[in-house]
Amino acid sequence: MRIAIDAMGGDNAPAEIVKGCVQASQSIDAKLILVGDQEKLNAELAKYQDSCDQSKLEVVHASEIISGEDSPVQAVRHKKDSSMVRAVRMVADGEADAVLSAGNTGALMISGILVIGKMEGVERPAIVAAVPQINHAGRYTLIVDSGANAECKAEHLLSFGRMGSIYMHNAFGIDDPTVGLINIGTEESKGTSMLKDAYKLLKESGLNFVGNIEARDIPGGLADVLVCDGFTGNIVLKLMEGTCLELLRRIKAVINDSLVSRLGGGLLSGKLREMKSQLDYSSEGAAPILGIDGLVFKMHGSSDCVAVCNAVIKAANLASGSMLEDCRNAMKGGLFE
Amino acid sequence: MRIAIDAMGGDNAPAEIVKGCVQASQSIDAKLILVGDQEKLNAELAKYQDSCDQSKLEVVHASEIISGEDSPVQAVRHKKDSSMVRAVRMVADGEADAVLSAGNTGALMISGILVIGKMEGVERPAIVAAVPQINHAGRYTLIVDSGANAECKAEHLLSFGRMGSIYMHNAFGIDDPTVGLINIGTEESKGTSMLKDAYKLLKESGLNFVGNIEARDIPGGLADVLVCDGFTGNIVLKLMEGTCLELLRRIKAVINDSLVSRLGGGLLSGKLREMKSQLDYSSEGAAPILGIDGLVFKMHGSSDCVAVCNAVIKAANLASGSMLEDCRNAMKGGLFE
Repeated sequence: MRIAIDAMGGDNAPAEIVKGCVQASQSIDAKLILVGDQEKLNAELAKYQDSCDQSKLEVVHASEIISGEDSPVQAVRHKKDSSMVRAVRMVADGEADAVLSAGNTGALMISGILVIGKMEGVERPAIVAAVPQINHAGRYTLIVDSGANAECKAEHLLSFGRMGSIYMHNAFGIDDPTVGLINIGTEESKGTSMLKDAYKLLKESGLNFVGNIEARDIPGGLADVLVCDGFTGNIVLKLMEGTCLELLRRIKAVINDSLVSRLGGGLLSGKLREMKSQLDYSSEGAAPILGIDGLVFKMHGSSDCVAVCNAVIKAANLASGSMLEDCRNAMKGGLFE
Repeated sequence: MRIAIDAMGGDNAPAEIVKGCVQASQSIDAKLILVGDQEKLNAELAKYQDSCDQSKLEVVHASEIISGEDSPVQAVRHKKDSSMVRAVRMVADGEADAVLSAGNTGALMISGILVIGKMEGVERPAIVAAVPQINHAGRYTLIVDSGANAECKAEHLLSFGRMGSIYMHNAFGIDDPTVGLINIGTEESKGTSMLKDAYKLLKESGLNFVGNIEARDIPGGLADVLVCDGFTGNIVLKLMEGTCLELLRRIKAVINDSLVSRLGGGLLSGKLREMKSQLDYSSEGAAPILGIDGLVFKMHGSSDCVAVCNAVIKAANLASGSMLEDCRNAMKGGLFE
């Protein structure tokens, strides 16, 4: 098992990326290939020379970096020796079983499409986000697409449902995950004509489709997988995160308002902190780009070494399982052949 | 000043509607016209005969009721003697200065369009929702459209911005309200082609346009008026409400988890209750349907007498001001003449 890591992507690269990989290498049986500026990466690795066995770590040089501001298509086309493109190419060339990056999401998506290629039967790969269910600690709802395709056809939503179900099964061990369609009413007749068509396709798909889910019911976790266009998914993801953060901030202000309330808050602080950490939207570490014909994982841009370590372990687990093959089988003969 | 009220619409009609109107009639200088089943309404009014002066209340008979399940267009066309259509017709005929209903939202919209008509220059009337800003007690953000038009053109969003600004000025006293466009990124180049066009129109509109607002920033109240298509608006409105409710439920569970945390929660309970009531999405009572050539207000379906009383007072205040005229002036010569 070999995992390629874009060691130069993300807010905390390369230091936290390298540190996270060093940590992960102690607990998994995989070769970790750090792609990026050789000199800088070796200097980072040197920090752990005495404390850790580095036999499972390897550095592959890449001279360029794709930044967060780069235009994805331009960057992938022109920065062929960037750490991201080089790392993705290792999967395309069979030199790695999976690739991870905390860099530019759009560029990672385009790298996957241009360098590895789309899976047979997939027209639109999708970015997913696993959001913590507010009232079920440790449980997640998957949003597909969470931002890649602002406009979608009904058939895309069907493929998001198929791929999302396979991911939830492989990554979270959920058998026959429930799939819901985000809509503005529960009745089959609700929403745009695209959504009405998507409803019909999902109903006849053989997936465990539970119908339309209104936004009010999303935080309650009524379905394991929620499908929607990437515009809606992005709004849902960021609005839930923003609302939780703002409400927790307000509660903090309420607690700090008087001596009595500070006392009350003090008695609750341990449990509130625990709740807050369970609601942390970055806790899931890495999410795959579904529909690429290889395992490509996006880590949060702000990932620290703990997040990187978790992400690498998660990617290795999925790479050793059957997710990619399951996805290929489900999509082959899809609507887009 | 005369206000017509659909006394048979909503979950708690006619009892709470009548009670709310009786209460409102004690504090405003307006004739309140209760439209609906004469016998039932007189029986309700009789309950307050001894305790309240009823000189400002009047009953107008209507034999039919439009239910929540009725198809809006069919209902408005066929139930011509329904309390809703009769009440709306009073505005069209100059017999009332405003109309309120807690009934079927779609039917109220269609009644407004078919019976009163659209304002000159308006192609798509919009439903608005004023949502409480989580960290600014007593302040609201207006979402236009919050559910009437699932698909919109850029020009519609411009008209939503104009009408929303006028409403925020008249209803909340905000001078030159800020207007934001809900989008999946802050840059001008983000989102669908419709949103890019809407951005340009809003930028050149003379409105106090503050640009794209990402969903993460909506709860922080970055703009007084947020414009979007009705699909997005409905998702935003219901997701914020659902997320707040679910998180408050979780906090309640955290508090009830142990003796110590219950003690802590007890010390905070007064302030948490206060916060919860400030976040109540139904507190605003009534919202106008903007773009109808007359004042039509939708009350929440579950309105109790307090909500009805507040809604009637609010409608009377707006009817005595210049909102309708301001809106007519702003929209005249609009893009849809």
